[in-house]
Amino acid sequence: MAEPSLALRSAMLRIGEEIDAAFETVLALPDDPRAGLYRAMRHAAIGGGKRLRPLLVTAVAGLYGVDRAVAVRVGLGIECVHVYSLIHDDLPAMDDDDVRHGKPTVHKAFGEATAILAGDSLHALAFEILADPETHPDPFVRAELVLALARAAGPGGMTGGQAMDLEAERTRFDLATVTRLQAMKTGALIGAAVDAGLILGRVPPEARTPLRGYARDIGLAFQIADDLIDATGDEDVAGKKLRKDGTRGKETFLTLLGLDRARAQAAMLVDQAIAHLRGHGAEADVLRDIARYVLERDR
Amino acid sequence: MAEPSLALRSAMLRIGEEIDAAFETVLALPDDPRAGLYRAMRHAAIGGGKRLRPLLVTAVAGLYGVDRAVAVRVGLGIECVHVYSLIHDDLPAMDDDDVRHGKPTVHKAFGEATAILAGDSLHALAFEILADPETHPDPFVRAELVLALARAAGPGGMTGGQAMDLEAERTRFDLATVTRLQAMKTGALIGAAVDAGLILGRVPPEARTPLRGYARDIGLAFQIADDLIDATGDEDVAGKKLRKDGTRGKETFLTLLGLDRARAQAAMLVDQAIAHLRGHGAEADVLRDIARYVLERDR
Repeated sequence: MAEPSLALRSAMLRIGEEIDAAFETVLALPDDPRAGLYRAMRHAAIGGGKRLRPLLVTAVAGLYGVDRAVAVRVGLGIECVHVYSLIHDDLPAMDDDDVRHGKPTVHKAFGEATAILAGDSLHALAFEILADPETHPDPFVRAELVLALARAAGPGGMTGGQAMDLEAERTRFDLATVTRLQAMKTGALIGAAVDAGLILGRVPPEARTPLRGYARDIGLAFQIADDLIDATGDEDVAGKKLRKDGTRGKETFLTLLGLDRARAQAAMLVDQAIAHLRGHGAEADVLRDIARYVLERDR
Repeated sequence: MAEPSLALRSAMLRIGEEIDAAFETVLALPDDPRAGLYRAMRHAAIGGGKRLRPLLVTAVAGLYGVDRAVAVRVGLGIECVHVYSLIHDDLPAMDDDDVRHGKPTVHKAFGEATAILAGDSLHALAFEILADPETHPDPFVRAELVLALARAAGPGGMTGGQAMDLEAERTRFDLATVTRLQAMKTGALIGAAVDAGLILGRVPPEARTPLRGYARDIGLAFQIADDLIDATGDEDVAGKKLRKDGTRGKETFLTLLGLDRARAQAAMLVDQAIAHLRGHGAEADVLRDIARYVLERDR
């Protein structure tokens, strides 16, 4: 598969370092009996991960001249929700995965009880970061950020999509239902990252439509790419177990569309995502590169 | 043990009905594959529970003439965090409890995966409720409420206390450490409920000290009472399994102080909590009754 563009690779390296540094600060090891909890959170949060959501926050906020440090901190809050969801997803009662980002999953390394609490802790921390006056001086912006993330994370978004995903092991879903499931399960948080950039940029709601369309399209393309990686990818490169969908009899974009039509559909979504950026010039090139990368990535 | 006063019983009935009605609305069953998730959330959230935290929000907010419906909705948000914490606490990897409020626990009734997601969903919903402009028109108040709850729920509060509690099974804690553990594990959320009432009442930070002292004292008294119920209570009345602390070799207020000194300490905390209310007249009588009830309750 293709490498990301040089500009995107550099943007990814930069946000990766910024998010790791920010996690180092908010997850500094306490000198008390909570050290094990913090070790578990650090294990999951630091080093590893594509940091796609913080990258989207900074790239969108960058279109509107938002202070970079503010956008990074908001990206950190959203990444906390993403990381917590991976910890809980990997639990034995959920996907029962042993490896994530090429390392043992949190429950393998720290036990199930600590994994549950580490996820819950990062979940609360996300909202603490977004509501903190040090993140943004304007309470209206803080409250809007919290609302966007909470809606995306909850039963109308991510956890609702995860619950549908559990149900998919028992019920045969059609394409419309699988599309809705994925729009909630992974799309909602990607949408919240783009929304956060728009909120920080003080873009009025009526002017948010194009970038929301962009978010929706890359969210679905991202999920189709995940299905393709699961079916055809390399476990060492992906850093996690693959070939899971096929063994569970779940309908996915791949089972419903077949390999060729799934690829074509994802390519169409990427083109459409880029078309939503037509109102922006070269300053949106990173967002265009992200749209292409979402499909071309191999992990 | 003593019954709550008539005034408190009436206040508890009222808030119980208001919170049940509010949960009925926000957890209305969706006609889609998320119905199982919502059933699990409703099972945990509706009917049962003392609603102590919403009662504190409304009682404190009532001192400052806050609109009752607003205080109830904020109490609902905080109760979402309390309910989610019970769902996760009961999981096999945590306390492994089969009965809660006299009903099967969520994982017993709906399976572990759905229980994890139901807890995560209520956690996100809590912040969605607090950040919603329909809850309060002032974004400054919304952001303050979110920050207070997130800090109380996260690793500096409730989940931090739960992690210390796990550690207590391996390490012998002294009284200072057990006190800190309990102040975080149950005290932080009780403190957030009182804080929420103060925030809604627009009480400036420097004037919040007495009611914060009240919250701290009843939080500790509440936990000592829990230890007493665990050691000497009736499982049918409590609606959950008891005699758990003794079997795990964990230090508690009871093991460290003994029965008589623990009771005396709790009674002293109740007196002290009531003394913090000396600046208030009869309008704070429900708060005084709550302080007494926290210790006298049998479930």
